[in-house]
Amino acid sequence: MRHCDNLALLTDLYQLTMAQSYWQSKKSELATFSLFVRSYPPNRGYFVSAGLCDVLDYLQGFAFDQEALDYLKSTRMFAGEFLHFLNGLRFTGEVWAIPEGRLFFKDEPILEITAPIIEAQIVETFVINQINLQALIATKAARCVHAAGGRAVVDFSLRRTHGIDAGIKVARSSYLAGFSGTSNVLAGKKYGIPIVGTMAHSFVTSFEREIDAFRSFVQSFPDNSILLIDTYDTLGGARKAVEVAKEMARKGQRLRGVRIDSGDLASLAKEVRRIFNDAALRDVKIIGSGGLDEYDLAALAEANAPYDSYGVGTRMGVSADAPWFDMAYKLVEYNGRPVLKLSTGKVSSPGKKQIFRFAEGQGRLRNDVIGLRDENLPGAEPLFKKVMEKGKAQAPYPSLKEIRESFLDEFRRLDDKSKAILSPATYPVELSPRLQQLKDEIEQEVAQNELPLTRAI
Amino acid sequence: MRHCDNLALLTDLYQLTMAQSYWQSKKSELATFSLFVRSYPPNRGYFVSAGLCDVLDYLQGFAFDQEALDYLKSTRMFAGEFLHFLNGLRFTGEVWAIPEGRLFFKDEPILEITAPIIEAQIVETFVINQINLQALIATKAARCVHAAGGRAVVDFSLRRTHGIDAGIKVARSSYLAGFSGTSNVLAGKKYGIPIVGTMAHSFVTSFEREIDAFRSFVQSFPDNSILLIDTYDTLGGARKAVEVAKEMARKGQRLRGVRIDSGDLASLAKEVRRIFNDAALRDVKIIGSGGLDEYDLAALAEANAPYDSYGVGTRMGVSADAPWFDMAYKLVEYNGRPVLKLSTGKVSSPGKKQIFRFAEGQGRLRNDVIGLRDENLPGAEPLFKKVMEKGKAQAPYPSLKEIRESFLDEFRRLDDKSKAILSPATYPVELSPRLQQLKDEIEQEVAQNELPLTRAI
Repeated sequence: MRHCDNLALLTDLYQLTMAQSYWQSKKSELATFSLFVRSYPPNRGYFVSAGLCDVLDYLQGFAFDQEALDYLKSTRMFAGEFLHFLNGLRFTGEVWAIPEGRLFFKDEPILEITAPIIEAQIVETFVINQINLQALIATKAARCVHAAGGRAVVDFSLRRTHGIDAGIKVARSSYLAGFSGTSNVLAGKKYGIPIVGTMAHSFVTSFEREIDAFRSFVQSFPDNSILLIDTYDTLGGARKAVEVAKEMARKGQRLRGVRIDSGDLASLAKEVRRIFNDAALRDVKIIGSGGLDEYDLAALAEANAPYDSYGVGTRMGVSADAPWFDMAYKLVEYNGRPVLKLSTGKVSSPGKKQIFRFAEGQGRLRNDVIGLRDENLPGAEPLFKKVMEKGKAQAPYPSLKEIRESFLDEFRRLDDKSKAILSPATYPVELSPRLQQLKDEIEQEVAQNELPLTRAI
Repeated sequence: MRHCDNLALLTDLYQLTMAQSYWQSKKSELATFSLFVRSYPPNRGYFVSAGLCDVLDYLQGFAFDQEALDYLKSTRMFAGEFLHFLNGLRFTGEVWAIPEGRLFFKDEPILEITAPIIEAQIVETFVINQINLQALIATKAARCVHAAGGRAVVDFSLRRTHGIDAGIKVARSSYLAGFSGTSNVLAGKKYGIPIVGTMAHSFVTSFEREIDAFRSFVQSFPDNSILLIDTYDTLGGARKAVEVAKEMARKGQRLRGVRIDSGDLASLAKEVRRIFNDAALRDVKIIGSGGLDEYDLAALAEANAPYDSYGVGTRMGVSADAPWFDMAYKLVEYNGRPVLKLSTGKVSSPGKKQIFRFAEGQGRLRNDVIGLRDENLPGAEPLFKKVMEKGKAQAPYPSLKEIRESFLDEFRRLDDKSKAILSPATYPVELSPRLQQLKDEIEQEVAQNELPLTRAI
């Protein structure tokens, strides 16, 4: 498979050309880069951290293989000595990060990398690629779980995620944020996520009669069948499922549930529920699916639609209403000198940082302060942990189940107004006085060094 | 790397549970599934086919390995004999498809697979996953190329594509649809796509003065430097680039270009152009970037902004305004019997199909007719080719460059109204009389077999 490629080449060309220029001008001092999201997409009031584990694996294994170097040589862009240098290049730096499964907010660094500038620069593309995707999906999934109001939500998105890697990472990120399972078998194997599934319309249409399809399926899965009832007519399908459930009952078996995948999901669920209740089949579950996202789930909860759980697919798996974060990886310190960028609308904060989270008595989250790494704000939890030193990950990673539990715990502690599906309240985040002062100083310094020159020429 | 996984498991659980039920009820007849897009996303009037090559590779290599089978066994959902059957399972079917790099339209099958039902069913998830992504991006990229009005467009999206696989496939799909290159080095190696790049803001901020960064970079790349000029102040950056260009000229070197990544791109380009022209540096190119998509490119063309080329990133790489297609893979024939599904709003067309494309005298595309596979409509080009027989791909795949050329040729033949960036005209597609008649008959038959039963119970 093509996915066994050397990932050191999975980078933007400019990372390598800049590296050659750094190398030729002998710039090898330590640089610190900071990864953060610059703005909230519509209807977002928080983010969920995810993807750190893949970043640490990548950094630990970072190396160009011979095939990669041969390709770079063939482009005739690079000096032979520089390619020789790349041959021996490993990631030797330090990483501080918010652990996976924590809430974070706009402008807060998720991760800061300190390493010789070539190393810290060259890994940018992969770091953003993975954390952007996984935090994006974990955030979308947390919104779905919240909107479902206690009903289980499972991931059905694999067929429309953007490729193979996304399919696997979406299953993990959504489970991390509170989903109950995934249809993705490979992700189930890889991460120990519960795998779930029902049947497809094609299964039904491959039989001459819908009821024959139902009978065949429950014979194969007498303990665990969920019948898809909307292939021809949902209420008709429900009545056939009742027949089958009664046949099963006579054998001491039990139909687990039915799935509705199209039509007016709120009213159909009520009618289907009545059909099963009238047949004394109150324990047959109803699963809803078909293009759902948090907006639909909130509307179904509002309408008291009697679903027991939901399959959520495409719109979650591509974060359809906000398919990317404005995530940036910016140089904030070079050779001990704090730096920033002033591009229109994109001013960054200088220096190595720490995030301080303040909570109230019962643990309810109150506000965050972004400070400098060496600050100590009494009463606050510092979110940044040192997760890599000298290129080696610090401790065994927490398990996915532990991450999921820690997320669900913290999410409960976030105010409902910040969790609103539409127009959430802005969670209070400010800069510490020391960071604010540093930022002002550097802005002024840059203005003296760079901007007057502009106007003078 | 984790991406060496056995892809047979990259499927929805229900594909495997349905397979067990088919197997236990000895259903092994030939099934034909049809892959198509049910509706146009906003502002789409055509689609571009892409992804077939990955699908054929997957089908040819399809097999469960021992680790996959061990995992399935551990779930306790499957019968031992069925797992033994999976162990020997290979894809033995036939595939008809529209070649890559062709235009296609709503409701037209892109691909039809005929195989024993278990094989044809189990591959669904991967087939949709790959073709949905690649056609989605090829379509978005074609719109960007069209909007740029002759200026070169390159792919800068890797950092915000949805994961690794998407990053690679986006580079390929956008090149296929007319992009000129990609920043993605791995994709360059894998597909022979020209790789391109400039420099990052962090390169500039790592130097104490912007002009030192410029001097260092052009020293490393005297023939091929594009300087990023908006880190502090775009016009100031342009004037420093002029200084550096003059220094280069004195050594017989030439500055290739500058890039603007923020601010009011239209007016900045005009001012920057003037600064270079006033310095007699008319051949220094200006590259635009920064959150661009086809809507921005059309506005910049409209404003006559003097850009020579564009770097297009996130919004193209995630198809931000339409991050998924309503793509379905539906059973259309089983054991020689045409079938369909009547779910609300999702009625499919039965039977094996062919697409017939009619053109006018000068080759301008006129209309398409979806017919049955064995029809012959004089004067039309049949788009479906048999690309796999008995599980073996039929011919060597065309090269990516050939696919790209064939796309650009056909795209020129499509009416401008269908290519409009906003509210494109609907390209005429109809069903052949024979297909329409078959569809009517099957709908009636289904209504007799299934729907009266609904009302009778």
